[in-house]
Amino acid sequence: MSKATWIWYPGDFEIWLNEKVHIRRKVRGAIYPVFWRLDRHYSSVSFCCNVDLKQEEEISIYADGEFSLYLDGKDSQRFTQSKLLVPAGKHEIRVAVYNNAAAPAIFIQGDTIATNADWLVTCQDKQWHQAGFWHFDHPDHPPSAYKLATTEIFPERLEKKQEGWVVDFGKESIGYLKINQATGHGGLTIYYGESLEEALDDENCLQTDSCLLHESSPQNYNFPESRAFRYVRVQADKSREKELQIASISMLYEYLPVQDRGHFQCSDETLNKIWETSLYTLRLNTREFFLDGIKRDRWVWSGDAYQSFLMNYYSYFDIDIVKRTLISLRGKDPITTHINTILDYSFYWFIGLYDYFVHTGDEAFIRAHYGSMVSLMDYCLTRLNQDGLIEGHEIDWVFVDWADIDNQGAVCFEQLLFCRSLEAMTLFAGLANDPSRERQYQNLAVDIKQKTFDLYWNNELGGLVHQYKDGQQGAQMTKHASMFALLLGYLNNEQKESVKQNILLNPNIQAITTPYMRFYELAALCEIGEHKHVTNEMINYWGGMLALGATTFWETYDPTAKDLQHYEMYGLPYGKSLCHAWGASPIYLLGKYYIGVKPSATGYATYDIEPNLGGLGWIKGTVPIHNGEVRLYMDTTSIRITATTGSGTLRIHSLMMPSTNKNGCITPLGNDVYEIEIVGNGQETVIQYLTL
Amino acid sequence: MSKATWIWYPGDFEIWLNEKVHIRRKVRGAIYPVFWRLDRHYSSVSFCCNVDLKQEEEISIYADGEFSLYLDGKDSQRFTQSKLLVPAGKHEIRVAVYNNAAAPAIFIQGDTIATNADWLVTCQDKQWHQAGFWHFDHPDHPPSAYKLATTEIFPERLEKKQEGWVVDFGKESIGYLKINQATGHGGLTIYYGESLEEALDDENCLQTDSCLLHESSPQNYNFPESRAFRYVRVQADKSREKELQIASISMLYEYLPVQDRGHFQCSDETLNKIWETSLYTLRLNTREFFLDGIKRDRWVWSGDAYQSFLMNYYSYFDIDIVKRTLISLRGKDPITTHINTILDYSFYWFIGLYDYFVHTGDEAFIRAHYGSMVSLMDYCLTRLNQDGLIEGHEIDWVFVDWADIDNQGAVCFEQLLFCRSLEAMTLFAGLANDPSRERQYQNLAVDIKQKTFDLYWNNELGGLVHQYKDGQQGAQMTKHASMFALLLGYLNNEQKESVKQNILLNPNIQAITTPYMRFYELAALCEIGEHKHVTNEMINYWGGMLALGATTFWETYDPTAKDLQHYEMYGLPYGKSLCHAWGASPIYLLGKYYIGVKPSATGYATYDIEPNLGGLGWIKGTVPIHNGEVRLYMDTTSIRITATTGSGTLRIHSLMMPSTNKNGCITPLGNDVYEIEIVGNGQETVIQYLTL
Repeated sequence: MSKATWIWYPGDFEIWLNEKVHIRRKVRGAIYPVFWRLDRHYSSVSFCCNVDLKQEEEISIYADGEFSLYLDGKDSQRFTQSKLLVPAGKHEIRVAVYNNAAAPAIFIQGDTIATNADWLVTCQDKQWHQAGFWHFDHPDHPPSAYKLATTEIFPERLEKKQEGWVVDFGKESIGYLKINQATGHGGLTIYYGESLEEALDDENCLQTDSCLLHESSPQNYNFPESRAFRYVRVQADKSREKELQIASISMLYEYLPVQDRGHFQCSDETLNKIWETSLYTLRLNTREFFLDGIKRDRWVWSGDAYQSFLMNYYSYFDIDIVKRTLISLRGKDPITTHINTILDYSFYWFIGLYDYFVHTGDEAFIRAHYGSMVSLMDYCLTRLNQDGLIEGHEIDWVFVDWADIDNQGAVCFEQLLFCRSLEAMTLFAGLANDPSRERQYQNLAVDIKQKTFDLYWNNELGGLVHQYKDGQQGAQMTKHASMFALLLGYLNNEQKESVKQNILLNPNIQAITTPYMRFYELAALCEIGEHKHVTNEMINYWGGMLALGATTFWETYDPTAKDLQHYEMYGLPYGKSLCHAWGASPIYLLGKYYIGVKPSATGYATYDIEPNLGGLGWIKGTVPIHNGEVRLYMDTTSIRITATTGSGTLRIHSLMMPSTNKNGCITPLGNDVYEIEIVGNGQETVIQYLTL
Repeated sequence: MSKATWIWYPGDFEIWLNEKVHIRRKVRGAIYPVFWRLDRHYSSVSFCCNVDLKQEEEISIYADGEFSLYLDGKDSQRFTQSKLLVPAGKHEIRVAVYNNAAAPAIFIQGDTIATNADWLVTCQDKQWHQAGFWHFDHPDHPPSAYKLATTEIFPERLEKKQEGWVVDFGKESIGYLKINQATGHGGLTIYYGESLEEALDDENCLQTDSCLLHESSPQNYNFPESRAFRYVRVQADKSREKELQIASISMLYEYLPVQDRGHFQCSDETLNKIWETSLYTLRLNTREFFLDGIKRDRWVWSGDAYQSFLMNYYSYFDIDIVKRTLISLRGKDPITTHINTILDYSFYWFIGLYDYFVHTGDEAFIRAHYGSMVSLMDYCLTRLNQDGLIEGHEIDWVFVDWADIDNQGAVCFEQLLFCRSLEAMTLFAGLANDPSRERQYQNLAVDIKQKTFDLYWNNELGGLVHQYKDGQQGAQMTKHASMFALLLGYLNNEQKESVKQNILLNPNIQAITTPYMRFYELAALCEIGEHKHVTNEMINYWGGMLALGATTFWETYDPTAKDLQHYEMYGLPYGKSLCHAWGASPIYLLGKYYIGVKPSATGYATYDIEPNLGGLGWIKGTVPIHNGEVRLYMDTTSIRITATTGSGTLRIHSLMMPSTNKNGCITPLGNDVYEIEIVGNGQETVIQYLTL
């Protein structure tokens, strides 16, 4: 028997979920919807499948929505019953489904007939597509019933105050507050805080709830909406408080079940704490999609999600959430603004797809979404200026970073992202067998890269200036363009050295104060071998947040700020998100540049292993490599590696000729660098070597 | 105090209503959704208004959906209460509203602040539009509560049968069946019929319902969905029938309240009956939108609606339903198929807009929808063939008519509709101040018309052949192209005469058997003065349906068919719609060509009155002329005219010099034709004249 699964119009489960997620943000009980167009699933779709039955077969039909089924084009003879006997022979089965509340979906099970990805579906635009599906394999659990998992957790501390209770869950969390075994009659007001100060501040606390209890026998009360908090203040109405009794307060912690596949430990305890806190920060934001922050905005932002993708490859390697996030970001046609209305964020989407393909080798996904890639790129191409450079139009937000930068005119940083996007589209056009676009994208990429260096490279300053406007190079030098050029592999050795000395390590260049851009800054420094510097930066910067009591990493962190200043943002005393995914970049830095594993062929068929102690006594960790993993231990004299799939190339610096416990090739590359082949067979390779 | 009204994103009330209407069709209880993309309202929108208050003002806020309001860009300080005190001074009010079930809408009332068309709204695509509104002026009646009106009517005959009841409402109708004062327990099955035969046919009857009654005291049961029928068979479950008692059966007739502004009477009783039956046929299909038929399809089809628009100008002159229908037909971007998937139907939409503008002069509507006109025309322009002719692609349905015609290749009929569409767009581009498109459309229109006559005119056959394919004129001659060329004013006098003799009055040319195309055929004959012929055709063709007992006019009528053949269509015994809007064309023919009133300037600022007895002894009637009307009586010696607005030009044929009861100009034009100015002042002009 072929096993059925729920199917829908491809992308529409994600689009529906995206709509739900993006109207969930509230400020003190008031909705705060996204300020970009919120797309919606098609409400009326039709599924189709051709069958050839040796004998008649009874099918059971489940639909998420109203449905009618007909055979062989007889569209006036429709069935709506949940069981149908399909006669023997060849038949075309068509099912029309209507659902305005969630993506129309069906689940049909017979002996040989079963809904699956072989079925086709149309939104009635005369195009048929392979049906979308996931893991909804039970008829009683349609996609519209999808929910994250929950588990009850109790606070570390509960303090009864005159007017109520103050609860500390010990660390940042997200979920549904629960009042247990309440009796009496009266109103409760809830003040949530990421910080204790926020929970205690009636006026300025951003998340509140309220309820009215009127129970004579003890009852549990679950708040219906999930909130992000560490602290909760539960306050009873003054007039009523004496009547109310509460046995305890807990929460239903809400999470996406993902597997912890990446690990890291080292000789520095602060760094270990940073890695664990990073992982927890990422986990809280790893939900229906990759969110920016769990208190605020609770939205999917392309530039933020892009970093989560990269961290994910070094932690969960959950590819479903990457796909869901990419689909939801792109939305539906027509495209009338950049993704999230931000110029850069359209490009991060292309580059996110590129990285997804590099890490997974999933050509089918690329081909299935090629059309929507082309239409976004078409949109971008309508927005070139007279110099052929990409530029923000009036309705576009040119973000780059939260920093004091003038982003008018054509910004260098955007040309670099655009160029990589075009390179990605060149690759995808090849996969989609679209040679004319492949040539067009390739030519454009070459052209943009050339122009970027012609127009923005400043020999005197030794890097790429930020801006080109009114036919002139701008005067402002930021780290952003140069570090991206380095990361994207666009610099030659001479340029690299210049960028390192004149830009990245130059204290006179404006410092970066967001973990968002520190991500790329530190990655760029690793690319040029400045691991020791990066180790110190991580310990100081992320360690600085830990020293201030952070249990998750923040949206921004300025070490020079004092006390409550740390919580301020957007003119609000508690406006800052204290659990922001982009704060978790040490996961990526330590996995990619310390454990040192990265794909050298798509889907990790082959990979490089370039471990680096970064000044630490020892490091050990695991990097997931798609369907397998690489486990590595390293100190100054030995390296132990176990890889379970594919084929790796270890590349190390050693002051002596290394030796291993395997028969195998050790290739000296000169300058004390050696290459050793690692076979992905689950056996440990032990290497003796020497570094200082 | 400024009066508030409910406002929404422009078009979204119509789009939402369109979605509701188009999933309502059922075949024996099974949904039968449209086979084109069903578009949806935006669920998340934001409204905006700037105010300047002399003193603080309390506003009451009503929202259809979840809302939050904020002032002066302070988007983290949002209000959700239903009352708010707005401080004195200048303020920007913004309201975010989310509603996935119906178009998000708001109603805000203060002393000076009130939601109206001055408010702006965005779907968050960075474009602001004037808000949409209609007549929802009470806070308790949001647009989502919109319903047609109902009134209870009782059957003409109720016959108790062994197993139930057979009810005859005396004429075709639509509404909700009602079982009155039922007692007992048992199931009822309902068989509806447009004909008695259908209601009596268990197997083939297309509309059914069922319910289970279990009432001890007498109760009324209203069926929840409206059906179209004249006859109803109510059948009790065999096992239970004796327990069930029903006092009576009735229906809640469901209708759009419109004003009967057009009237017609004449010396021929059959023609009077035809006019009344036409009006009733149109009224039943005049609902949320102009439907094709009330039993089937219950859908909005552009080509069908186009004819209803024209009939409407000679009956209700209800412009709201025209606008609603035009908006719902167009749907949302992106355009991926022709309207209703039919090539011709995209063009009828443009021409329908053109006629709307001619009859109403509503430039604001044209400007507001110009963008969606351009995108549909852009889509059409991507579908020209190598000869520059419009042609059906694989996914397109080239309909023309229900007839045995080969519509492959480039069809002449389509070029003519395309040409008029381009002429309409030339006009609209001018109104929208878009000179480059104005030129483009004009040049294309001239080019298409030239090509049409070059490629399709056949001197030998004396008309336009149907098809041009593979570089060759097709051999088939149909009436369709030639009669449209005539109607659109594309023929010179010589061509007109040729078309009349060789095509329209030529019995060897394939006869038209749908009221749909008879509409244009008879209009074309009127254009060339063949009124007497048309009078006979109407009496024979529509009179033929009346003679068969029709109480509304049919989708198709073939006078040579016998008995039950009249109900067959699409391979179904009762597949034919017996109440089809396109059957009502005598309203248009008699109003436009007999009473003879039509606009000569947009919005009926001026108009022509060219009455014609068409062989009848006398005619009298009223034609609505936007905000006024023209009342006319005519016999062979006298004409009486009262016009209430604008300025008319009466043009008559008289064997003697006419005289009037007014001082005013009578201008002889030669050939016994005279022009007389009619002032729209509500006073009757009496003309003495003479015709045979």
